[in-house]
Amino acid sequence: MFVLVNLKAYPCDAVAVAEAAATVADDTGARIAVAPQAAHIEPVAETGVETWAQHVSSSGHGSHTGSTLAPAVADAGATGALLNHSERRLKLADIDGSLRAAEDTGLDTIVCANNPRQVAAAATLGPDMVAVEPPELIGSGTPVSRADPDIVRDAVAAADEVNPPVPVLCGAGITSGDDVEAAADLGSEGVLLASGVAKADDPEEVLRDLVSGI
Amino acid sequence: MFVLVNLKAYPCDAVAVAEAAATVADDTGARIAVAPQAAHIEPVAETGVETWAQHVSSSGHGSHTGSTLAPAVADAGATGALLNHSERRLKLADIDGSLRAAEDTGLDTIVCANNPRQVAAAATLGPDMVAVEPPELIGSGTPVSRADPDIVRDAVAAADEVNPPVPVLCGAGITSGDDVEAAADLGSEGVLLASGVAKADDPEEVLRDLVSGI
Amino acid sequence: MFVLVNLKAYPCDAVAVAEAAATVADDTGARIAVAPQAAHIEPVAETGVETWAQHVSSSGHGSHTGSTLAPAVADAGATGALLNHSERRLKLADIDGSLRAAEDTGLDTIVCANNPRQVAAAATLGPDMVAVEPPELIGSGTPVSRADPDIVRDAVAAADEVNPPVPVLCGAGITSGDDVEAAADLGSEGVLLASGVAKADDPEEVLRDLVSGI
Amino acid sequence: MFVLVNLKAYPCDAVAVAEAAATVADDTGARIAVAPQAAHIEPVAETGVETWAQHVSSSGHGSHTGSTLAPAVADAGATGALLNHSERRLKLADIDGSLRAAEDTGLDTIVCANNPRQVAAAATLGPDMVAVEPPELIGSGTPVSRADPDIVRDAVAAADEVNPPVPVLCGAGITSGDDVEAAADLGSEGVLLASGVAKADDPEEVLRDLVSGI
Repeated sequence: MFVLVNLKAYPCDAVAVAEAAATVADDTGARIAVAPQAAHIEPVAETGVETWAQHVSSSGHGSHTGSTLAPAVADAGATGALLNHSERRLKLADIDGSLRAAEDTGLDTIVCANNPRQVAAAATLGPDMVAVEPPELIGSGTPVSRADPDIVRDAVAAADEVNPPVPVLCGAGITSGDDVEAAADLGSEGVLLASGVAKADDPEEVLRDLVSGI
Repeated sequence: MFVLVNLKAYPCDAVAVAEAAATVADDTGARIAVAPQAAHIEPVAETGVETWAQHVSSSGHGSHTGSTLAPAVADAGATGALLNHSERRLKLADIDGSLRAAEDTGLDTIVCANNPRQVAAAATLGPDMVAVEPPELIGSGTPVSRADPDIVRDAVAAADEVNPPVPVLCGAGITSGDDVEAAADLGSEGVLLASGVAKADDPEEVLRDLVSGI
Repeated sequence: MFVLVNLKAYPCDAVAVAEAAATVADDTGARIAVAPQAAHIEPVAETGVETWAQHVSSSGHGSHTGSTLAPAVADAGATGALLNHSERRLKLADIDGSLRAAEDTGLDTIVCANNPRQVAAAATLGPDMVAVEPPELIGSGTPVSRADPDIVRDAVAAADEVNPPVPVLCGAGITSGDDVEAAADLGSEGVLLASGVAKADDPEEVLRDLVSGI
Repeated sequence: MFVLVNLKAYPCDAVAVAEAAATVADDTGARIAVAPQAAHIEPVAETGVETWAQHVSSSGHGSHTGSTLAPAVADAGATGALLNHSERRLKLADIDGSLRAAEDTGLDTIVCANNPRQVAAAATLGPDMVAVEPPELIGSGTPVSRADPDIVRDAVAAADEVNPPVPVLCGAGITSGDDVEAAADLGSEGVLLASGVAKADDPEEVLRDLVSGI
């Protein structure tokens, strides 16, 4: 199971969360990554934690003021890029372009999607992983694995039909080790979470609980 | 005169350009700032050069994956934010929102615009500065001060009518000290440039020439 | 006072609302216009009512699939275009471009904005009218003239400072003749409304009440 | 073979092109449709020609000013909707949403895409047809079937792998019956064209030539 902690634009201490994640990953052998703001990638990566960008642009080097250049986030220490999160939906052509930009830079990729049909579409574009996150459950505290287990099962089935098959993560409302176990039982190979860790008083404790079920 | 070097998504060494800019600024007393990719703000700011973000989002702290949070770029060392560059045009409501987000974080602001009418609109929103950059001259090598001096004069006049008046920068095609002088003669209080420095074999030499006319 | 009924994407009978509006306008001499979906402009205009487009693109004739061409809506019978509604926010450069496209086609224009600062920015771009609609009050049933009278007064003051001054409409939560009167008392020269008429059992009755206070 | 004539925002006489298309379709039994501006759907449909919208929004009935509501274009006479044209690229989630909106309204659908990988992604979303149009060939006068036959073959293969298989159209640079034949030989079941008919002195003559090879 892969645990990706998306710090979004939360007012948390990104480095403190990264250190907690690095510690828990080291202690337990679990794969835990942290996705901070682009401006925080360098200090987060310096903690030794696996670091992801929250987005990269489809455009490469050139006259693209205000873009998020894949080689720049890689320079700063990111080794992966989240794409098409429900808070940063992309055009189909730009998901394809951003995947190629990430791939050319050696970044791992996850493409998020709302439902199994969009998961299938995302999977055909060749990301390393896809993630299904029903927008209405994000930040809800109710895990997708309990609120809508079929959406996870159907997403896994949809991604399996693509050749080669693409691993599916799930997200929205994940806060505990039980939720992670439930996600694994449904066929998912990882979880995306955000506020459950970023807003926790003790992120390390939450992360230990999260990976306890793996 | 304020010289803002926009590194866009160019394949340059951002830290090397920043060091050159810091050296020339120290030696000459000229105000020179560098605007790198968000992921490069921290190492650029560590050179001591005045560092700007190429964009900040209108949204504040919260669930905004892939945004460019004003407090995050400020944490990393930015003290200013460029907004509405012709390669990153914003909705009117978002220029307003991004200005408020930047202001709340203590960032200086420049709002770019295509023509004097849009400069006036931008100036009414209360940025620290505005910039006029005719899109067709960006990267052309022909300075706006020569290709279209009236657009600079008219932009200065438009910004002067706003109360309080807003200083005007100009950009597009600026590559030499003569161009900077010509811009000053037209009433502009600074210049935006990009490829002329970012793609130069010797950025320090170009910067010394640029500020020679100030 | 100008009353603009925005039919949005409501499931109403656009022609029936248009006929009611045409009847009330004829009977009372009030200026009432209806803004339907682009595909309904022709049958709405055929009722004789003043007909507006809900949006026009900044691009003119050319390779712009899926655009809303100003000359096409004019052909179909529209004589005005609403721009930058809070449900269709535009880039600053595109408000300018759409205004020029509308002007070249002889369409009247209203640019909407969220707050007095954005109203001032919109007014400098030279529309025929501006409108202030606090997004949080749209569809609320609480008229802006009661919920936030200062926003209307401040918008009128902001538009008056532009030379030439630009008339201000207000919208959000308007449902009765009393609301229209209150808007006029605050200096506004018209109102935008939508669900209050579009979802009414008897649009003609609502429109008669609305214009009763003019 | 299906021939879809996209009138974009060209300054042509939409009704005259529609009449020519209706005549040629009647005379030859070929399936020819015309996609005009939304505001021209009603008069185009009244010629009896098969009429398509150039775009429909993913949002349904409701507070969506400036949207292109699927039921509104259907009311006006459209029986199909083009989606994700390279001049109107959509977010993945909105292609899915627009397909559902079109389907609920009984509209046929074509989703355009740049390359075979995106064609496969589009096909998984369940449109009636997909179309591959390399953006660099649009309006070029060089038919995709000659400039890049492999892109058409690969797109057909990609769409065939989806279950149920989805017919592929191709577009860009198509101007003659020979081009249509070449497209059919590559496995495509139709063509999209625009300027070749819309800008022709005699659209009927061009259409007769186009369908001569079917």
